[in-house]
Amino acid sequence: MSPIDADVHHPMLTHDHASEWLGIEVLHLGDGQATIAMTLRPEMMNGFGITHGGMIFAFADSAFALACNPADGDGSTVTVAAGVDVNFLAPSRAGQRITAVATRRQQQGRSGLYDVQILSDDGATVIAEFRGRSRTIPNRHTK
Amino acid sequence: MSPIDADVHHPMLTHDHASEWLGIEVLHLGDGQATIAMTLRPEMMNGFGITHGGMIFAFADSAFALACNPADGDGSTVTVAAGVDVNFLAPSRAGQRITAVATRRQQQGRSGLYDVQILSDDGATVIAEFRGRSRTIPNRHTK
Amino acid sequence: MSPIDADVHHPMLTHDHASEWLGIEVLHLGDGQATIAMTLRPEMMNGFGITHGGMIFAFADSAFALACNPADGDGSTVTVAAGVDVNFLAPSRAGQRITAVATRRQQQGRSGLYDVQILSDDGATVIAEFRGRSRTIPNRHTK
Amino acid sequence: MSPIDADVHHPMLTHDHASEWLGIEVLHLGDGQATIAMTLRPEMMNGFGITHGGMIFAFADSAFALACNPADGDGSTVTVAAGVDVNFLAPSRAGQRITAVATRRQQQGRSGLYDVQILSDDGATVIAEFRGRSRTIPNRHTK
Repeated sequence: MSPIDADVHHPMLTHDHASEWLGIEVLHLGDGQATIAMTLRPEMMNGFGITHGGMIFAFADSAFALACNPADGDGSTVTVAAGVDVNFLAPSRAGQRITAVATRRQQQGRSGLYDVQILSDDGATVIAEFRGRSRTIPNRHTK
Repeated sequence: MSPIDADVHHPMLTHDHASEWLGIEVLHLGDGQATIAMTLRPEMMNGFGITHGGMIFAFADSAFALACNPADGDGSTVTVAAGVDVNFLAPSRAGQRITAVATRRQQQGRSGLYDVQILSDDGATVIAEFRGRSRTIPNRHTK
Repeated sequence: MSPIDADVHHPMLTHDHASEWLGIEVLHLGDGQATIAMTLRPEMMNGFGITHGGMIFAFADSAFALACNPADGDGSTVTVAAGVDVNFLAPSRAGQRITAVATRRQQQGRSGLYDVQILSDDGATVIAEFRGRSRTIPNRHTK
Repeated sequence: MSPIDADVHHPMLTHDHASEWLGIEVLHLGDGQATIAMTLRPEMMNGFGITHGGMIFAFADSAFALACNPADGDGSTVTVAAGVDVNFLAPSRAGQRITAVATRRQQQGRSGLYDVQILSDDGATVIAEFRGRSRTIPNRHTK
């Protein structure tokens, strides 16, 4: 969908084992924005032969985390998901490549609201709509 | 937490690769109910060293699916997640064992509402509260 | 449904014009709990002749506010709704008496999670399920 | 905010007592879209002197209903709210004029997803973000 930025890099991903396992590829990062892609694998399917809702959610959640946390942040705070409302709209299957587009919708103090749309690779099908509520907290690891 | 039922078995799990990957253990199944457990592994952690929200969600979603779909159903219909509202309340970490308790709250026609509580193994900490909206649809695989 | 407590009184209601307009009657107040009732009036109906979703929500929200804010609080803080996920399950109509039962589900620091069930007067029909996210903030009026 | 269309009229409003009570003014109607305004009155305030969440919700819900139900529909079906996730972002007060902008985000078969943004009259403050899940059902009144 989006053209791939040559050197997209985010320090958060260096140690993000879950995103690595999912096989997440970062296509674009911007202020309050992130676009990522992944290819669905057999081990992401549920007992009905369609993608497990949790894998779609995990993928969207990774886009949300990248949009929330600036790549050039000083590390004194981290922004995490306080909650999410997600609607599953269409099934997806192993072998399919999917995209997640995360966009900041609101930010007030330490609370934010982000929309993540999960799409088929051609952008023709909306697989899920994810609305994340973020909360910025002190980073205990750096203190 | 819950005592392990000796022969808990659900046909849905036979082909559920995602639940297998997560390492889900079924502790109890009942009418509109399911209790499962899993042990968090390093590859489920995010860049902040805590469990990726998507892994908590995937775990809760598996409990939800087991509670929605009776083990002795005739396979003509399947019940899937139409949407979920989830609140993340406390972090969890690699090595920790966690439990999900899914309970049917409402069922009206083909729509249902299920609560899933994700707990630390000792039950002392609520890690997340998940409310799933289910929808029962014809099973295209069996038709 | 619930027996009416003889002297249920909550200082918050003294100046709550919206609850007064709705005609809310307080049946029970407890720690993190509130049960209220109201009778639906023609002006609460929408263009389809059933109760406007906003009126059901307003009613549930009043129960939520009463459950969040202790009647004997010192007034230095107030607890407000940060957000809500609501599911409308059955219609209701003018002339019907309905009940809302609010219960605290979680409280961690300044954030809480409350369930409010809206029922027909006989308790046989669940009209809506409301899950409120609360946030406790300093009371600017008293400072 | 939006310029007022000279002859905005929607048959649903003819019998919508709740919208009439709220004092809703329709500014614009389009395909899957509606913009409305209202002026907050003292009886819409809660015990903290700010607008009752239920009144904000009722206002947003009216915009949602107008966006869901085409003014020139044949009346054989109606589209109702199955559920809503709402986030309250900023307080509002009596005397203030507020606007709600409803937009269709997704429609698949009988299920839809609509975003409603509630704004201060100058558009500078987002008071709430409302995401409605719609469901189209047969209209029993016309059958």
